[in-house]
Amino acid sequence: MIDYFFHPNGVAVIGATDSNLKGGFHIVRNALAGYTGKIYPVNPKYSEILGLACYPDIDSIPENFDMAVYFIPAKFLPETIRACARKGVKGIIIQSAGFSEVGTEGKKLQDESVALARVLGIRLWGPNCMGYLDGHTRNVFSFMYTDRWTTLMEPGPVSMIVQSGMLSAGFLIMILERGGMGVSKVCSIGNKCDVHETELLEYMINDPETGVIACYLESIIDGRRFLELARSTDKPIIVLKAGRSGSGAKAAMSHTASLSGSDAVYNGAFRQAGIVQVYDLHELMDMARGFSKTHSYRPGGRPAVMTFSGGAGIVTADLLEERGLPLADLAPETMASIKKLFPAWMEPSHPVDLWPAVEQNGASKVYIGAAEAILKDPAVDSLVMETFAWEFGKTDYLNVIGELKKKYDKPIAVWQIGRHELHVKYRAACEAAGLPVFEEISRCAAFLHAVKRHFSKKTALRARS
Amino acid sequence: MIDYFFHPNGVAVIGATDSNLKGGFHIVRNALAGYTGKIYPVNPKYSEILGLACYPDIDSIPENFDMAVYFIPAKFLPETIRACARKGVKGIIIQSAGFSEVGTEGKKLQDESVALARVLGIRLWGPNCMGYLDGHTRNVFSFMYTDRWTTLMEPGPVSMIVQSGMLSAGFLIMILERGGMGVSKVCSIGNKCDVHETELLEYMINDPETGVIACYLESIIDGRRFLELARSTDKPIIVLKAGRSGSGAKAAMSHTASLSGSDAVYNGAFRQAGIVQVYDLHELMDMARGFSKTHSYRPGGRPAVMTFSGGAGIVTADLLEERGLPLADLAPETMASIKKLFPAWMEPSHPVDLWPAVEQNGASKVYIGAAEAILKDPAVDSLVMETFAWEFGKTDYLNVIGELKKKYDKPIAVWQIGRHELHVKYRAACEAAGLPVFEEISRCAAFLHAVKRHFSKKTALRARS
Repeated sequence: MIDYFFHPNGVAVIGATDSNLKGGFHIVRNALAGYTGKIYPVNPKYSEILGLACYPDIDSIPENFDMAVYFIPAKFLPETIRACARKGVKGIIIQSAGFSEVGTEGKKLQDESVALARVLGIRLWGPNCMGYLDGHTRNVFSFMYTDRWTTLMEPGPVSMIVQSGMLSAGFLIMILERGGMGVSKVCSIGNKCDVHETELLEYMINDPETGVIACYLESIIDGRRFLELARSTDKPIIVLKAGRSGSGAKAAMSHTASLSGSDAVYNGAFRQAGIVQVYDLHELMDMARGFSKTHSYRPGGRPAVMTFSGGAGIVTADLLEERGLPLADLAPETMASIKKLFPAWMEPSHPVDLWPAVEQNGASKVYIGAAEAILKDPAVDSLVMETFAWEFGKTDYLNVIGELKKKYDKPIAVWQIGRHELHVKYRAACEAAGLPVFEEISRCAAFLHAVKRHFSKKTALRARS
Repeated sequence: MIDYFFHPNGVAVIGATDSNLKGGFHIVRNALAGYTGKIYPVNPKYSEILGLACYPDIDSIPENFDMAVYFIPAKFLPETIRACARKGVKGIIIQSAGFSEVGTEGKKLQDESVALARVLGIRLWGPNCMGYLDGHTRNVFSFMYTDRWTTLMEPGPVSMIVQSGMLSAGFLIMILERGGMGVSKVCSIGNKCDVHETELLEYMINDPETGVIACYLESIIDGRRFLELARSTDKPIIVLKAGRSGSGAKAAMSHTASLSGSDAVYNGAFRQAGIVQVYDLHELMDMARGFSKTHSYRPGGRPAVMTFSGGAGIVTADLLEERGLPLADLAPETMASIKKLFPAWMEPSHPVDLWPAVEQNGASKVYIGAAEAILKDPAVDSLVMETFAWEFGKTDYLNVIGELKKKYDKPIAVWQIGRHELHVKYRAACEAAGLPVFEEISRCAAFLHAVKRHFSKKTALRARS
């Protein structure tokens, strides 16, 4: 397999520089910030970069090593591959552009390089990519201009396979800053001339540190195998397949030289393989974050809804039902338990508008009481909960609800309103308690729909095999 | 008309208190913070509240006045209406609950009160509502517990008619905090026993301070008139009609005692009347904000897309085309102008991925140059622009693009990525320049779709009449 990319014994950086305006500097800086093996900057102009000995060329490196990161102009790739072969290199991550995405000449150079590497037994990752980040090993081999990942990236189960630089740089930092998503491996694959999404999917499926796999793909090279792998695993796989439309497909061709294929074909095939298909960028990350906190689902029930406002409950009920998820009929005992939290004059109904109860008994008691009553009801398979982040409240009760979620083994999706700074605090408390928070109610509904589909499909596939 | 609600000559607050844990305090505090007329707190327990003389009962108020805000238990409403009649009151905003939403007894009380008020020539607003806020007069007659509106609420064109307290309180503050949306009148109508959405819609259509009308409704009492009014105006009307599903309709019944009606009926009728229908809560506000910055549209063209990353361009193209908005074929002169901003080796295509050009020439020059080339192209009717909020950039160029938008009279929707604090800064700069920012690409696409539909429909309706 391609494990040497993720656990390399020594890494050369071809095109290292000491100017922080250039990517070749940031590759070294990022590597130094996490990777614990040997780093060999290569550039004839320097004898030292960031305190590391810098080598004029690959042949001058005194020992063999597993991996190289390539960040010099495209045309030097073939000779670099040859030099790397002399040093026992197993894989090269090519982050430079100027290959198939720029036209026929670049395509020719790329094809020749792949053929040469194959003969010499070297695997190529990229080109035109941003490398990868690993939340567990802290290996970051990428020209990302920021080191904010050192504080923002928490180890966790989400791995990503992305065919866009943005998704592994600016956008990724935005997602990490938002919090709640633990990272396993984020792989930017660019033109994927050799190592491609299907091979990485297989790696992630076998990777014990990966629990959820999120993909942004402009094409799928070995579609049959990709689907086979998806079917074979219980790990949720979420795919944003871009280039579905005529304009999008044309654009994918010029972005990463990808032939997109027909949307109709992907659609049905993804569904059959139990892949969760999404259509937008935050949606991809929301689903990944949601699934990373959702490990089981008991079919046969329906969703329940408890809110802080009547309006939100109605909107939630509409959006769930429109996705084929009509509300659960709560048992009389459930309603009786909830009734105890309400003022005498008020008869609760479903969706449960908790406000009158909270006004009388406080948020903690009411939210915990209602959540327990609802989650233990066998008619309920999942819960959408609206919370209100406010000045006077404490967030402790969210931990208790996180425990109830585990105890009753049912997915919960949270929608939340409130002032930004309080929202951030409450959101963090929810995410820490294992309760994924979504910014729009429709996202909660879409998530529970995906959860139901995923677990039902996996059960069906297991029964068949 | 019901103008006395919005410009009352004297307002009594029935149920004023001096405890800031109670709504009756906040009604007085909010009124004092904006309203410039006379305020008469009424409560036999106090002689003064917040520096105002407090009256033991309505009859003790020494002069006549136009309006009362009611915040005491429901059962006292009939006698309060009689007392108000003796003081020449024209309208009462009833913010207490305990009426039709709690069952038959409350319904009876509500009906009797309406009948009595009608005989006495008094209009009733509510009950079970949060009153209203006015961004221009600064009148805020609501028990909202916060005074953050005093700094957050900017006068502007967006009026709202909402059948939920949340939407005029916590959620509204969240929206105002996010910025970019100027407010005309936000009206919470609750059980709408007398003054209802259709009457308010007519008021807003005739209100010179209102440019866009956003509604959250659980039912529409006089649907025929509502649609007639919508057809008659060029002001965009955006409606989130809740209670579309079986569960939602049931919930609407217990929330504001609303009979929701069939979704299929609303759907077609809304479309015919040129109403923009939305399905979620932030979506409602996004559309309102977007339309408040979008005053014209020239049909016959198609959307153009310029981004900071190839991936975002492809996703945008897909989402636009899937909504029936395939990309414009940019003219050769347009591409030639854009080409001048790019490195020699790079041929731009559409969607235009600006990154290679920005790397070479800086964001300001490239964004302005590309936007002008695109907006002046007659094949283009609108633009989706992705921006990246980053440390080293300035936001000045966004003003220039705002000017170009005016000059070429074409709608622009912005999607943006970047670190939160920078994103907030860039977003504010965009909104100030008249460029609405959306958090998800699909929202940009949905907005441009709604813009096209709205302006085409209005043109068609004008042609017919």
